[in-house]
Amino acid sequence: MQGNTFGRSYCVTTFGESHGPAVGCVIDGCPPGHPFDLASVQAWLARRKPGQSKLTSARDEDDTVEVVSGLDQATQKTLGSPICMLVRNQDARSSAYEEWRHVYRPSHADFTYDAKYGIRAWQGGGRASARETIGRVAAGALAEQLLQARFPALAIRAWVERVHTLDARAHIDPAAVTREAVDAHPTRCPHPETARAMESAILDAKKKGDSLGGYVRLYVTGVPPGLGSPVFDKLDAVLAQAFMSLPACKGVEIGSGFAGPEATGLEHNDAFEWQGSDVPQMSTRTNRSGGVQGGISNGMPIDVRLVFKPTATVLRPQPSADDAGHNVELQAKGRHDPCVLPRAIPIVEAMAALVLVDAWLGQRGQVGDPWPGLSGPINPG
Amino acid sequence: MQGNTFGRSYCVTTFGESHGPAVGCVIDGCPPGHPFDLASVQAWLARRKPGQSKLTSARDEDDTVEVVSGLDQATQKTLGSPICMLVRNQDARSSAYEEWRHVYRPSHADFTYDAKYGIRAWQGGGRASARETIGRVAAGALAEQLLQARFPALAIRAWVERVHTLDARAHIDPAAVTREAVDAHPTRCPHPETARAMESAILDAKKKGDSLGGYVRLYVTGVPPGLGSPVFDKLDAVLAQAFMSLPACKGVEIGSGFAGPEATGLEHNDAFEWQGSDVPQMSTRTNRSGGVQGGISNGMPIDVRLVFKPTATVLRPQPSADDAGHNVELQAKGRHDPCVLPRAIPIVEAMAALVLVDAWLGQRGQVGDPWPGLSGPINPG
Amino acid sequence: MQGNTFGRSYCVTTFGESHGPAVGCVIDGCPPGHPFDLASVQAWLARRKPGQSKLTSARDEDDTVEVVSGLDQATQKTLGSPICMLVRNQDARSSAYEEWRHVYRPSHADFTYDAKYGIRAWQGGGRASARETIGRVAAGALAEQLLQARFPALAIRAWVERVHTLDARAHIDPAAVTREAVDAHPTRCPHPETARAMESAILDAKKKGDSLGGYVRLYVTGVPPGLGSPVFDKLDAVLAQAFMSLPACKGVEIGSGFAGPEATGLEHNDAFEWQGSDVPQMSTRTNRSGGVQGGISNGMPIDVRLVFKPTATVLRPQPSADDAGHNVELQAKGRHDPCVLPRAIPIVEAMAALVLVDAWLGQRGQVGDPWPGLSGPINPG
Amino acid sequence: MQGNTFGRSYCVTTFGESHGPAVGCVIDGCPPGHPFDLASVQAWLARRKPGQSKLTSARDEDDTVEVVSGLDQATQKTLGSPICMLVRNQDARSSAYEEWRHVYRPSHADFTYDAKYGIRAWQGGGRASARETIGRVAAGALAEQLLQARFPALAIRAWVERVHTLDARAHIDPAAVTREAVDAHPTRCPHPETARAMESAILDAKKKGDSLGGYVRLYVTGVPPGLGSPVFDKLDAVLAQAFMSLPACKGVEIGSGFAGPEATGLEHNDAFEWQGSDVPQMSTRTNRSGGVQGGISNGMPIDVRLVFKPTATVLRPQPSADDAGHNVELQAKGRHDPCVLPRAIPIVEAMAALVLVDAWLGQRGQVGDPWPGLSGPINPG
Repeated sequence: MQGNTFGRSYCVTTFGESHGPAVGCVIDGCPPGHPFDLASVQAWLARRKPGQSKLTSARDEDDTVEVVSGLDQATQKTLGSPICMLVRNQDARSSAYEEWRHVYRPSHADFTYDAKYGIRAWQGGGRASARETIGRVAAGALAEQLLQARFPALAIRAWVERVHTLDARAHIDPAAVTREAVDAHPTRCPHPETARAMESAILDAKKKGDSLGGYVRLYVTGVPPGLGSPVFDKLDAVLAQAFMSLPACKGVEIGSGFAGPEATGLEHNDAFEWQGSDVPQMSTRTNRSGGVQGGISNGMPIDVRLVFKPTATVLRPQPSADDAGHNVELQAKGRHDPCVLPRAIPIVEAMAALVLVDAWLGQRGQVGDPWPGLSGPINPG
Repeated sequence: MQGNTFGRSYCVTTFGESHGPAVGCVIDGCPPGHPFDLASVQAWLARRKPGQSKLTSARDEDDTVEVVSGLDQATQKTLGSPICMLVRNQDARSSAYEEWRHVYRPSHADFTYDAKYGIRAWQGGGRASARETIGRVAAGALAEQLLQARFPALAIRAWVERVHTLDARAHIDPAAVTREAVDAHPTRCPHPETARAMESAILDAKKKGDSLGGYVRLYVTGVPPGLGSPVFDKLDAVLAQAFMSLPACKGVEIGSGFAGPEATGLEHNDAFEWQGSDVPQMSTRTNRSGGVQGGISNGMPIDVRLVFKPTATVLRPQPSADDAGHNVELQAKGRHDPCVLPRAIPIVEAMAALVLVDAWLGQRGQVGDPWPGLSGPINPG
Repeated sequence: MQGNTFGRSYCVTTFGESHGPAVGCVIDGCPPGHPFDLASVQAWLARRKPGQSKLTSARDEDDTVEVVSGLDQATQKTLGSPICMLVRNQDARSSAYEEWRHVYRPSHADFTYDAKYGIRAWQGGGRASARETIGRVAAGALAEQLLQARFPALAIRAWVERVHTLDARAHIDPAAVTREAVDAHPTRCPHPETARAMESAILDAKKKGDSLGGYVRLYVTGVPPGLGSPVFDKLDAVLAQAFMSLPACKGVEIGSGFAGPEATGLEHNDAFEWQGSDVPQMSTRTNRSGGVQGGISNGMPIDVRLVFKPTATVLRPQPSADDAGHNVELQAKGRHDPCVLPRAIPIVEAMAALVLVDAWLGQRGQVGDPWPGLSGPINPG
Repeated sequence: MQGNTFGRSYCVTTFGESHGPAVGCVIDGCPPGHPFDLASVQAWLARRKPGQSKLTSARDEDDTVEVVSGLDQATQKTLGSPICMLVRNQDARSSAYEEWRHVYRPSHADFTYDAKYGIRAWQGGGRASARETIGRVAAGALAEQLLQARFPALAIRAWVERVHTLDARAHIDPAAVTREAVDAHPTRCPHPETARAMESAILDAKKKGDSLGGYVRLYVTGVPPGLGSPVFDKLDAVLAQAFMSLPACKGVEIGSGFAGPEATGLEHNDAFEWQGSDVPQMSTRTNRSGGVQGGISNGMPIDVRLVFKPTATVLRPQPSADDAGHNVELQAKGRHDPCVLPRAIPIVEAMAALVLVDAWLGQRGQVGDPWPGLSGPINPG
């Protein structure tokens, strides 16, 4: 296995290069009998696809998904067998890349692919292209369907919190953000005023051939307590892997994150509190833990922040090097996203769904379902 | 598999609870014929063990390791079969935990273990205890031996960069830090002046029954280009998982990390440059990528920062809850680390070694050894 | 993971139902830079496909493979990224199955799929159909290419040794069998006289709506010593899994197999003998071990026998049961193979290739390449 | 991973060499809250250990197991964390092997280990010794406890069916065999008359320095329908791997096995039949399928036959070869089992338990529990 598969119970393998015939995924381990909602998967892909606004790459792709296997032909229910989903690449202009065939674009993966494999799909970044994430989004869209069928209160929401120096954090109440509010503006920042400023900044960078980075916030409510494996596969550790595996992501923090050390332990601890009377549910008065303690969900919102660097593709001359040992100058051109963050939102949500569905099925296998954390106070024997 | 195994080629499974008979690990996939250096493993464990200074828990443990399998009895070389290493628990005072048997310590894993499993080893945190990391350190010490035998220039260094508000970053040249300099002071901060201030702050917190968090910096030099799988198992993604799986770690960033968006793409990109004449080696003029591009090492230093929250164990009354649905007050007592960072250093280094040895063996399996990145400019067919 | 993936280094995941849009596979872990030979893959599929002779099902399928990913578009070399291969289903007559939608065909997987999943693709056996093996054959064809590039002497040969009571074993010298000789007759038995008798028997059974089973012999020469993992993944254990995972296979034996106990230990042991002078190679005077000792190849031919039961589809009335608790009579009809063995040959060879390529890459990862067994006598330190 | 781990949900990793400090296992994925029955595990090990009768090796081992982790110290219930079990090697007489240090014993794994690793634990066969199976038996004993807690009717029984030419098959009704009847005689053949003849034959072979092989029959009743993954991890495929991974096993067949082709399809098919009125259960009138159809259990007894070759250790001069390229004569001596079959019984049962518990937990993860097959007729939507 060479890192193209994610998950142990709900296993997603993605395949496909940017300028090859198609990209897609195979999901092994999907529970049987689930009514597959193709329209929902297609809607997720539409949120990810290029050309959706002037903020994104002009590459023209329908991104229509074909479900090649795993569904009952009559009812469109999942069979429990592998689900293969395929999206054809249409607008692949390899010629645009021809002149860089032997040149390594700065802060791209061209050099490292050659260093690893001795060969690379130089057209459009090949496998390092963001088109690889199509398989993730399709698989994540189905994962969210499965999660909501089992945990109706579970809601996965991500949004753009910051672009360059424009930070909307102070203006947003995470608990109140809806997917509609996020999608209402092409930046996918749910604070309209900051969103507009971000849009201007992105368009300005685009005009200059430059690019911008920023932060994405992920907030998942309605997570049942007890999900996650407590050692290497801690829920937050797997989330960190999931997000750091996204192109351009350079950091992940959960709960208090990098600001945590500003507090002392006495200030930082989250006090427990049973709430409700019929079936008391555990909560914490604060959520510096970010919904995960000891690697296992505690029922509070999962609260994560990710950083994406500014897009490496910039349309100005840059010093670089070729594959024959020469230092050269590179003049990039063509289509790109001046800021990846708006399109990253469904991808981040998809990865969160993949992590959670895998944790749920793994928990069901080892402990059964319902497990202790779903039924209130626990009196272990 | 329930998350107690790390790695695909060099697979480490840890076992053991804090107050059970023993903790340890099994390593499957170790290359055969390596002269196992027991003294080096023991030295790593000594850097991790409690009681090494007044800054750490007073728990009294020898942490003497027994190698139970996998070595040739005559030569002490590795056989290629599983290596099991065992450390007995000695100073386990379970009675100190008796009164919290039914109470959930704030920001600990007590509640979440009960929520997940319906049972927990309430003595000393069981599996959530930092004693679990003994197996990681033993396996990581051997991993470093293997790496250095193959890549003599590779050096893994971690140190304490910040405690509470005391930040030594500006005073430290990462490329110049040695393991000796790090270990010279009990705080494991290689800037003596800040180290002394950190020591005072930690002792002060300890006196108050309080605790402190901070940052660890990891810097790995001499990494060959071409390590890492480019999709879900990106080298930085697996490092992120590895570090976030450590108790109390709440965030990981690589290269420019969370500061990256302050720059635009034009400012942020790392320009490539071939250096040297006989066998030119690729380098970048800056290292905002942190040594990893597209999930694969580029030969520049791997540069990561981790944050650890302040220790959850504080010796002052705190509001909490029990396992029967009551909100109660908890008065913790006993032994603890007022700041986990000094002891975290060998653990962080061990996890880095585990990630790198696994990436190397995986690369050797798929591509062979040497692979293209080790021999200078590449002219792919 | 739910058993749709085979291999740890060269990982093959198959997908697709008999009457769904397509079947295929994804291969993760293929070494990069290999010149992919599409014609050879297509030729393997032609050996497997239905309608190739009057001995096989009349289902009319081209079985043209499309390589969707993993190849360099310019050179058709492997990139080291996942290779997805797709074959469309064309002649899927679901209506033929309509009347058995609620009836369980005897000795088929209809009932067990319902028992497991609560749903099944009742058209054509869904995932239990032999069409699933298309993905195995495509992946195995590539595996053989990789093996032959590294081990030019390695030759994988399988043939039909027995059908019903007609046994050609005594007439065949395994070391002399060629793929051409096997493919020369539609039965794929390389002893022409027995082959003709088998053909008559199969056609006779077909006429009666009956079916026949038999034995396949697998013989792999030129296997380097040292392949296989010595405990759970013994080379013969993984071969056994590989073959028993084929539809209708009910037994596997290696070397002396079920006849072994007729001999005593003194009679049964294979005496070692160094042969050759320049670089002596180890051989054994007999090969009752079947080329594997302690789970690891010893350089002698791998010699395996498999049994396939008579095809479960028979065109005569049979007592059966439906999915509502009633005992009913079933009258099967339609297309089927009266004897699966001729078409099983490329599938058996493909599985052997998958096992061997995986063992090789695993060995290269752990021990490097060349490993000790490739260079003659060994004087371990 | 290098083949020392078995199972995906209930993952057992064994470790240890014959003459190293200890052997044992780590189990990851055990369900929490199970009352661990140490006495039962110890009893299983007593059935496996040497020296239990004059038919077995005289090596003197207590085989007392220590549970190092994974149990609640107060209640001895499983915690859901890894369970490490350890058995010390006591009577390891390495000197007996000194003179063969450079000689390859015929039909042993000495040569192949050297060919693979370039090093081997020459004392007592190292990892290829049957002592490796101690970890399997300990893990399997716990697996059986878990299965019986969930499926009280499930009963795993294995016995010696044949030794050399003495075959008890015709005299034994598999459905009537009890573990007590099997253990009543040191040969573990439940037909007393044949058992006595087998005993004489084994003692006679022992006297001559010779050895014998034979067949083991495995019969599992009370298996719920619906267990097993239908493609590569078919239940019978995984059983085949499990058994072929045992030292000296050379073949596995299920149901009609190698005799299957004697029948035609019409004769061979197992007719379905609903039985019982309240909750009708599916059965088949015959069981040529051996309890598995399409890789999934159908509720009928799992019926498997395994063959073990005669023990490779024989105490007579044999031609052989050394590790320096010389052909030499070997005179083996020391302790050995003249027939491995009696001690193989608990090992075969253990492997069956490991396969079944893993299939159950995998099924629970994907489909939930109870799943459709447990509740009678199925009317899929």
